Amino acid sequence: MSVLVVGSIALDSIQTPTDSVKDEPGGSALYASIAASFYTSASVVATVGADFPEDVCPMLEERGIDTTGINIEEGETFRWSGVYEEDPNKRRTLLTNLGVFEKFRPELPENFRRTPFLFLANIDPDLQRDVLRQVDSPTMTLCDTMNFWISGKRDSLTQLLKEIDILLINDEEAREFSGEISVLKSGKWLLEQGPRYVVIKKGEHGALLFGPSEFFSVPSYPVYEVVDPTGAGDTFAGAMIGYLSECSNPGFHELKKSLINGSILASYCIEGFGARRLLSLTKDEIESRKNSFLEMLRP
Amino acid sequence: MSVLVVGSIALDSIQTPTDSVKDEPGGSALYASIAASFYTSASVVATVGADFPEDVCPMLEERGIDTTGINIEEGETFRWSGVYEEDPNKRRTLLTNLGVFEKFRPELPENFRRTPFLFLANIDPDLQRDVLRQVDSPTMTLCDTMNFWISGKRDSLTQLLKEIDILLINDEEAREFSGEISVLKSGKWLLEQGPRYVVIKKGEHGALLFGPSEFFSVPSYPVYEVVDPTGAGDTFAGAMIGYLSECSNPGFHELKKSLINGSILASYCIEGFGARRLLSLTKDEIESRKNSFLEMLRP
Repeated sequence: MSVLVVGSIALDSIQTPTDSVKDEPGGSALYASIAASFYTSASVVATVGADFPEDVCPMLEERGIDTTGINIEEGETFRWSGVYEEDPNKRRTLLTNLGVFEKFRPELPENFRRTPFLFLANIDPDLQRDVLRQVDSPTMTLCDTMNFWISGKRDSLTQLLKEIDILLINDEEAREFSGEISVLKSGKWLLEQGPRYVVIKKGEHGALLFGPSEFFSVPSYPVYEVVDPTGAGDTFAGAMIGYLSECSNPGFHELKKSLINGSILASYCIEGFGARRLLSLTKDEIESRKNSFLEMLRP
Repeated sequence: MSVLVVGSIALDSIQTPTDSVKDEPGGSALYASIAASFYTSASVVATVGADFPEDVCPMLEERGIDTTGINIEEGETFRWSGVYEEDPNKRRTLLTNLGVFEKFRPELPENFRRTPFLFLANIDPDLQRDVLRQVDSPTMTLCDTMNFWISGKRDSLTQLLKEIDILLINDEEAREFSGEISVLKSGKWLLEQGPRYVVIKKGEHGALLFGPSEFFSVPSYPVYEVVDPTGAGDTFAGAMIGYLSECSNPGFHELKKSLINGSILASYCIEGFGARRLLSLTKDEIESRKNSFLEMLRP
């Protein structure tokens, strides 16, 4: 089955304690679609400016990713720039220039409207809901968000939770949204708002999966050398939805497996700048790390 | 096989957002020996003041814990008082009054010197090494420490690492000791200092186990209502060493199981004030939670 990813494509300038890159192709839709492409065929809906490098879309197409939904608009591509401190969990944003992304109103091409698996990356919940109205009874929708929308568009986000299957959120955001200090209580609360499953990402501490009556906790795959954490969360999401799209009738068991796949792909993502490591990744490498991860998790 | 615990016994006054207790029996040796007593016979070496409640030792003895190594000295029992904020991971110490614990120089009774499994709870590393000299080739020694000794007695602690089997340390302390920001690199570095295994405790995020060529990551058992986190780490340690003492020839596999038992006992510990929940705990309850935990961890 195929996957549709709706989100941002950006040019990121990233500084780490040892290195830096300028205008590196990034954004949630780029990371998620590349990750999903290891499992299934993916399509992307996003917007970029006239300044977007011409070689990126052909590179995605080569991976079987349908880029006809990436609109090139007059203006500049969304640019983000940030600095990671010695502790890769700490980052400081230097600049956010939305560019054409500010006017992003996703219009799904006709042939995308029946895609069964959908990842709504972190954009305005009003737009996420608008996308949902454009798709024809999807099998499964995975949805990300962020603190900006939790405080700024709480009602719309609350409504969205009733319309999706899986909410993906980080621990701080889950706490903020629910008003609960305990991550567990946050997860339970979020589940009560409507989604069938809630996944709380805890960065280097892994992720928690909440189902109607089940719970699963997965650590992150141990990476000794973190080069650049940018995109890890979106890569996690892309691998999740990509993996799920290949399962017939995905339930809690398949969700668990999708988190493991998310951890593996995210662990590779952070081993290189931007999406570079993902782009050189092979299915054999995924399998090999997955086997060692399962070995590591076996009680 | 049997377990010897050397550490502190204290009277704790604890405030949480909803409740408080005064002079609650606690201390590392109390929590650890109670936890170990679910698996094996345990002996304790500790010191208390003349003011220590008379009913505590008989209560430990009832659980099969040998308390003949608890010396009652002229003076006051070690008293600690602290406040937990709404977030149970955050605590503030109000008072530390070492009392007779300040002069604690553990002297092992003759019949304790051949105990095969040893837990050296967090005390001065000079004293921990002194205890090691008093025991007759133990099968396995588990050792805890804290930031106070990492900064104040680094050389002694470094020497101790060459003399023990398992180091138990929390993530912040591991970072401080190793000078590494990455918890994984800290664990690897600590392993290189001598112990056969290193266990890094991450509180609500679980624990990591490092072996010569293996790695294991276990989340914490999910507890929705944390009443009082005091003693969770020592309970974890006591369950670990208690479980290990019942394994013939414990290796990495048994260490993994010991961490799972540690998580389970710690999860019960924090459901009540002080050691109260542990004292009402049954082996059936441990088994039941262990089964649901294993189910939860299954990938």
